[in-house]
Amino acid sequence: MTNTLGFGVVGAQFMGKAYAIALKAVPTIYPLSAAPVCEMLATSSADGAAAKARELGFARSTGDWRELVADGAIDVVCVCTPTWLHKEVALAAIAAGKHVLCEKPLAGNAADAREMAEAAERAGVKTLVGFNYAKNPATLLAREIVSSGEIGEVLHFRGAHNEDFLADPDIPIGWRERAATSSHGGALADLGSHIINAAQFICGPIAEVVGQTSIVHPQRPDPKTGALAAVENDDQTSFLAKFACGATGAIEASRVAMGRKMGLTYEITGTKGALVFDQERMAELRLYSAADRAVRRGFRTILIGPEHPEYGAFCPGAGHGFGYNDMIAIEMRDIVEAIAAGRQVWPTFRHGYETARVVDAVLNSVGERRWVRIEETGAEGTP
Amino acid sequence: MTNTLGFGVVGAQFMGKAYAIALKAVPTIYPLSAAPVCEMLATSSADGAAAKARELGFARSTGDWRELVADGAIDVVCVCTPTWLHKEVALAAIAAGKHVLCEKPLAGNAADAREMAEAAERAGVKTLVGFNYAKNPATLLAREIVSSGEIGEVLHFRGAHNEDFLADPDIPIGWRERAATSSHGGALADLGSHIINAAQFICGPIAEVVGQTSIVHPQRPDPKTGALAAVENDDQTSFLAKFACGATGAIEASRVAMGRKMGLTYEITGTKGALVFDQERMAELRLYSAADRAVRRGFRTILIGPEHPEYGAFCPGAGHGFGYNDMIAIEMRDIVEAIAAGRQVWPTFRHGYETARVVDAVLNSVGERRWVRIEETGAEGTP
Amino acid sequence: MTNTLGFGVVGAQFMGKAYAIALKAVPTIYPLSAAPVCEMLATSSADGAAAKARELGFARSTGDWRELVADGAIDVVCVCTPTWLHKEVALAAIAAGKHVLCEKPLAGNAADAREMAEAAERAGVKTLVGFNYAKNPATLLAREIVSSGEIGEVLHFRGAHNEDFLADPDIPIGWRERAATSSHGGALADLGSHIINAAQFICGPIAEVVGQTSIVHPQRPDPKTGALAAVENDDQTSFLAKFACGATGAIEASRVAMGRKMGLTYEITGTKGALVFDQERMAELRLYSAADRAVRRGFRTILIGPEHPEYGAFCPGAGHGFGYNDMIAIEMRDIVEAIAAGRQVWPTFRHGYETARVVDAVLNSVGERRWVRIEETGAEGTP
Amino acid sequence: MTNTLGFGVVGAQFMGKAYAIALKAVPTIYPLSAAPVCEMLATSSADGAAAKARELGFARSTGDWRELVADGAIDVVCVCTPTWLHKEVALAAIAAGKHVLCEKPLAGNAADAREMAEAAERAGVKTLVGFNYAKNPATLLAREIVSSGEIGEVLHFRGAHNEDFLADPDIPIGWRERAATSSHGGALADLGSHIINAAQFICGPIAEVVGQTSIVHPQRPDPKTGALAAVENDDQTSFLAKFACGATGAIEASRVAMGRKMGLTYEITGTKGALVFDQERMAELRLYSAADRAVRRGFRTILIGPEHPEYGAFCPGAGHGFGYNDMIAIEMRDIVEAIAAGRQVWPTFRHGYETARVVDAVLNSVGERRWVRIEETGAEGTP
Repeated sequence: MTNTLGFGVVGAQFMGKAYAIALKAVPTIYPLSAAPVCEMLATSSADGAAAKARELGFARSTGDWRELVADGAIDVVCVCTPTWLHKEVALAAIAAGKHVLCEKPLAGNAADAREMAEAAERAGVKTLVGFNYAKNPATLLAREIVSSGEIGEVLHFRGAHNEDFLADPDIPIGWRERAATSSHGGALADLGSHIINAAQFICGPIAEVVGQTSIVHPQRPDPKTGALAAVENDDQTSFLAKFACGATGAIEASRVAMGRKMGLTYEITGTKGALVFDQERMAELRLYSAADRAVRRGFRTILIGPEHPEYGAFCPGAGHGFGYNDMIAIEMRDIVEAIAAGRQVWPTFRHGYETARVVDAVLNSVGERRWVRIEETGAEGTP
Repeated sequence: MTNTLGFGVVGAQFMGKAYAIALKAVPTIYPLSAAPVCEMLATSSADGAAAKARELGFARSTGDWRELVADGAIDVVCVCTPTWLHKEVALAAIAAGKHVLCEKPLAGNAADAREMAEAAERAGVKTLVGFNYAKNPATLLAREIVSSGEIGEVLHFRGAHNEDFLADPDIPIGWRERAATSSHGGALADLGSHIINAAQFICGPIAEVVGQTSIVHPQRPDPKTGALAAVENDDQTSFLAKFACGATGAIEASRVAMGRKMGLTYEITGTKGALVFDQERMAELRLYSAADRAVRRGFRTILIGPEHPEYGAFCPGAGHGFGYNDMIAIEMRDIVEAIAAGRQVWPTFRHGYETARVVDAVLNSVGERRWVRIEETGAEGTP
Repeated sequence: MTNTLGFGVVGAQFMGKAYAIALKAVPTIYPLSAAPVCEMLATSSADGAAAKARELGFARSTGDWRELVADGAIDVVCVCTPTWLHKEVALAAIAAGKHVLCEKPLAGNAADAREMAEAAERAGVKTLVGFNYAKNPATLLAREIVSSGEIGEVLHFRGAHNEDFLADPDIPIGWRERAATSSHGGALADLGSHIINAAQFICGPIAEVVGQTSIVHPQRPDPKTGALAAVENDDQTSFLAKFACGATGAIEASRVAMGRKMGLTYEITGTKGALVFDQERMAELRLYSAADRAVRRGFRTILIGPEHPEYGAFCPGAGHGFGYNDMIAIEMRDIVEAIAAGRQVWPTFRHGYETARVVDAVLNSVGERRWVRIEETGAEGTP
Repeated sequence: MTNTLGFGVVGAQFMGKAYAIALKAVPTIYPLSAAPVCEMLATSSADGAAAKARELGFARSTGDWRELVADGAIDVVCVCTPTWLHKEVALAAIAAGKHVLCEKPLAGNAADAREMAEAAERAGVKTLVGFNYAKNPATLLAREIVSSGEIGEVLHFRGAHNEDFLADPDIPIGWRERAATSSHGGALADLGSHIINAAQFICGPIAEVVGQTSIVHPQRPDPKTGALAAVENDDQTSFLAKFACGATGAIEASRVAMGRKMGLTYEITGTKGALVFDQERMAELRLYSAADRAVRRGFRTILIGPEHPEYGAFCPGAGHGFGYNDMIAIEMRDIVEAIAAGRQVWPTFRHGYETARVVDAVLNSVGERRWVRIEETGAEGTP
């Protein structure tokens, strides 16, 4: 490795731009062991890629992601495509010896995710899954508080990732709503992955689940023809979980939750306190501590500041605000430093697989109308 | 019926005092068809009852609830005892031709609740179950909004009734934690009844459920001996629900939810909007409406005022506040007017039974690790 | 004094009903040294008074308040009239040897208030001014916290009493908007009195002020003729204050503050912490304490419970809610116990006068466009 | 102008890093008419500057700001020094024909600020003052709402900029607390400038003021000797304002406001609605609209999204968050586009002067204990 790292980004929609912003900003935010370079952007057309590369500041572009993956100047491949392409691109990148940052959900199902994780592990490349919200200082602080035992043993985790971007039934069908381009999991895989991942990050492994899903708007207009096309995966899902540590959980995901724009929320109840978080107020963590004397107890709102995880690199003043792109910058720092240090950083493809297993287990539980153990799911051949 | 109504209250703990306050205040709050009279108080000892009757302003007292039930001056019997006594007292009162207001949960199981409901229906007396939180103006408004279709079809109901009064494991065991004096349902029956009832009130019947329970603190000291005694019912429960209308639900109850003092909360998502409520801020209802133009959408906090249900009888100024005892006063108005008008008011023992069936179904689902339909539960012999 | 106390209430609008509710409920809420009796109600017409007395549960009624004041069965006169009548009724009551509870503002100006306070002191009767919000458990807790030094020395008090009941310019003119029936102070005297009183209660005497007032809607329709009539006092006022303790203050009052229904709010900054309160969430007090360790600091929301002042008499469960009429019940307990114990309870007419002096000083500062010391105002002849 | 713009930044503390991050990120966020280049960094020592330049990604560095100002590759000089140096650096930059972005407060007093504004206007260079919070989408939306008349005529503006970074009296004295290195205004000039600027931005010119200041901790340890040194300007200030439009105002600033980390807050009351903002929840604006029907009125929380000002360039998903450095990026876009388009963008040095006049007027009002008109202040020789 030289002291630069060439980044190639496949896909230029929502996350493509966020990645580009973060790659430009991050060397000024953190002292880095290597300088990331926006080397190449791939989209589905050469012309589109060229225009987008100019806009986002990539040195080169291509209409064929295989070219990007094969390019000698690329050290890290960022996979920001629709889900169905994740596996193919990532496996090709791994085969070419590249490190890979892949968006969530890691794959359309747990078996594919496992295949990706195993390939990466065999190849020894560094991997990262884009569970960006878990990089938020407030959630990092939540994990610190839970891990330290400050709120005692965890008794219950209630979480959700609710948005309303598909609440309007007239919104045309897209790749997210079709099983072939996305997953048999809809909101569950697309959004639920985030809160499942957060639950695992903070409270440890999930052991079993039972869930229910519903497709609220079963048909949407095709964006080209206007004809109604079938939605093939869940608009909303809720499930119960039992954690390996003994805690219970209740988790939801919805893409039709009117009013929720970034409704990643959780409440963690412990034997000595509780935590409440809402990503829409991402710079706050609410803490209740039984250690306070009785007449002064209450949920306190901690505004994230430089003495909390990560924040200080962005701003020396507490409570001055933390934004969406700031989380992405932390991810970029993570992959850069993982490569530089030769060690994996959380969450790797293996963690992405663990999240995908829960998604699959929930879907199985819906089909079979019973509790499903995670170890029943996607586990064959796990090394 | 004369233009007074003699009230006899059995039990003088938490609810006994609340009832007494409400009975004194309510004729000044509402114009009533009959004046309630605090006629008699029964507790487990004659001396204790006499002292408490003086304190709370009852005309007479007794150490034997059977005497109260049999008393000719009593028109309405209020059952505020531990759960295990509800059925016996209520059935005796019904047999004596009294109207009955019974605290929640109506009984220790659905079968008993059904027996009580059927007895009352056969006798033609008026009944009311003490689901006081559903009398809160904000929740009445929530029901109005949902019923009118203002937020469209209901897609999902997430609710909880969480408190932390048993979070401390050193709190001695009481009647609530033993199956014989309370129910096989712990937090689920004691607190969960409230949120199940609210869910049914606002969203209609629940069709099936699957749940999980846990006993967090399996032993507590006996208040007399100090020896550890077994807790026999759930400290916390969460369950999924499917409503008859097609909506999904996720409902929780806990008596060990550190930080929550009156955590009866719900979020109702519809196709055209959403509602959020938290009983700890009982004079507020939050509404999101898709009818607002896009750039001005957001959850608005409606402060309850005289143009909303019930509030105006208490105070002519909006947002001036509404308290716990005010809800009880509404209950007292309800039972008085039910008797005066000769018609039942919501929630009757029949509704209390419907709530109890859900509690039992959740417990069955835990035992059998599967979804349980409500119609499987407590239904034998239902007329 | 016998063991009952006859209450006579003059006026039957907003506060009249609240008083009646409280008088009925309070003996059940608190153990009292004497039982209050709703003896007589006076309004401006005999027929109206009779109807209202039946509705509110008073034994007798009159269309002439002088009759009430002279009645031998009346021990306590409650003055709930428009402001202009306060002085006349209260002085007559005092002259008749009655104890007096008078609504706020105590009088239309400080000189009148002083005359009332001095008359009461000479007569030795017990007095109380209806600053009901200061009886709220959360505000009582705030005072306790400040007095104990828990947030250090007070540096700044920012407060407001904002409502919007006159925001609509089409609302007809009433007694509040005319100097003769109310005061030269509009929102300042009517609402501002509450927050000035709270400031004095928590932070001690105010030493000097400078303010600005504005009449936002200078004319309103006469309710009978519809002709436009002049509004004669302020719709909104803001002023700076210097407290005797050295703290600074910034205080506001408005009756045209769109969106605020009971906007009595304050933030008190001390050298070791801060308090934030909003009467619209009357059962909460927010506390920031520098004694918490740095990485866990934040404003905590304390839900009022039985271990805080007063609340336990109303409900044994923390956070179950506290309402408008509950505060009035505390006032009733206060006047009953003041009489029984033969000692004054806060806030007496003397305190009402101290609040009125600040109102007058603000008005003077507006006229003279300068800082005005409180001791310049209404002080002549103060004993 | 070429299609790059060389930026030279003088000062490398709080704002220096923020500027560098923003300069790197902004071309990816916005399509720009010219590419900003981090050309040179100046601090007070050559070695320190060199190290900091490497860290922050500047091409060159210097220990002498005059060198930077004179450098031919510099098009824009960013002045991030302590206040006392603003004028000298800015005037030198202007004299060298450079465009200037200067931190707030523009100068230590209004006269200096005027001199700077006039020099820039004569030279025809583009200027920008670092009132970054006014670039926040929520505040831009607030201005849009007020300007459009959506909340009617503005009646009152209550605002504050409160922080607690100097609440601890043991924090050593720094340049901010000395008149010579900062200003005769302490919190008022340093923080108050932000909220005064916001008030002017949203509600128009301020016409007159009266204020009070206090030094809460009159001495602080010298960071080198530990000896106590005198604090020379206000720790907290509050003042009343009258706006040219007729609205009233009440504004505060504090650097000792325990619990407030970024307490830039305002509530704007209009005849048809109201707005509430808190920079600690910078991605939210609360709106109350009298246009809603009565029973559905309430403050709604608008989460900023791509349909609101600026946000869409950062993230296509509403409510996903907006951070401190994002505001700085908007500032960088503004100065780049101002230069490219050859037109000034708000807020120029002229606007910085208008804010400084209010600061001086408040200080004068304190000295003279009276209302002071802004036109009395700093106005001599204004062109």
